[in-house]
Amino acid sequence: MKIIMVGASGTMGKFISTVLEKEHEIIKVGSTSGDIVANINSVESIEEMYEQIGSFDALICTAGPTYVGPWNTLTDKEFRKGIEGKMMGQINLVLIGQHYISPTGSFTLITGAATHEPQRNFANASAANGAVEAFVRAAAIELKPGIRINAVSPTVIEDSPQYFPYFPGEVPTTMRALEYAFRKSVFGYGTGQVITPH
Amino acid sequence: MKIIMVGASGTMGKFISTVLEKEHEIIKVGSTSGDIVANINSVESIEEMYEQIGSFDALICTAGPTYVGPWNTLTDKEFRKGIEGKMMGQINLVLIGQHYISPTGSFTLITGAATHEPQRNFANASAANGAVEAFVRAAAIELKPGIRINAVSPTVIEDSPQYFPYFPGEVPTTMRALEYAFRKSVFGYGTGQVITPH
Repeated sequence: MKIIMVGASGTMGKFISTVLEKEHEIIKVGSTSGDIVANINSVESIEEMYEQIGSFDALICTAGPTYVGPWNTLTDKEFRKGIEGKMMGQINLVLIGQHYISPTGSFTLITGAATHEPQRNFANASAANGAVEAFVRAAAIELKPGIRINAVSPTVIEDSPQYFPYFPGEVPTTMRALEYAFRKSVFGYGTGQVITPH
Repeated sequence: MKIIMVGASGTMGKFISTVLEKEHEIIKVGSTSGDIVANINSVESIEEMYEQIGSFDALICTAGPTYVGPWNTLTDKEFRKGIEGKMMGQINLVLIGQHYISPTGSFTLITGAATHEPQRNFANASAANGAVEAFVRAAAIELKPGIRINAVSPTVIEDSPQYFPYFPGEVPTTMRALEYAFRKSVFGYGTGQVITPH
């Protein structure tokens, strides 16, 4: 399978790439490094990325910039970080990518536990996640039959302990569970699902 | 109670205003008419609205512009309608309104069944709803203790039969159920809830 990995230089992207590249062709996309450098905040950059890659079988996105910070200084301005990044960045990967994907291809986007389990300082991530999860359900009934779309929604992950203090009570997702969630989305047959690794 | 009704000239807003104004002071806000004319797509307009009103006990928003149209011509551009309107319009009503609301006040936003029950042509509404619902949960743990926030999430409503054909299988929400959902949010004690009228 030819798999595009957007966010390949991040903790999750690096891990999933390493796991999948044993059996698949992985095209690593990052904002500053990778096989292709692309900025998901830009429609033009996404279009250029797909033009370079051509047809593909799966896209996995683990990139999702959001604003993390105190509520009392949160305004429209800060909120835009998650809208342009994790929300529209991923939505545009699908709206544009559907014209390049193979007839049985799949999109796998990243959301997170904050959709339903809010944590302080993460309201922007909650909103972006909620938007992407609802979009995934909507896109599943709109994409050409055969093309699938899912989201993987982990809580804090094992390999990013620096975030643990911000997520009291959240049992960290193991990297193994994370891998299996992505496998389920890419190699399974479900669509419109929000997959929680556990 | 002094209640701000944003979207007062719409089908829902008019109905809820009529019901509540028997016992409460309703300040009707609309984009083209009302006690105050305001554009929720504009941070400046929202600020002006609150400056004119001063302290208040509850804000209800039933205004939520989104893009409705075919998936195959849906791009970033069309998607912005729901981002600026139903999503950021409502989020900014809260981020700004928290500085004007009374210490035991409440915000009630509008979402809709498309968050979890997608329908064709409504992907933009799904995403905006999902964002607002997750934001409501996040805001509930961030707002000053005593201030509450909920969303009301109806499906098609009884008094808007023109939308029925777009929502096959959705049992229309009665206006009575809609009224009670808003009553629950405004006069109850729950917070961070997505209330489905039934």
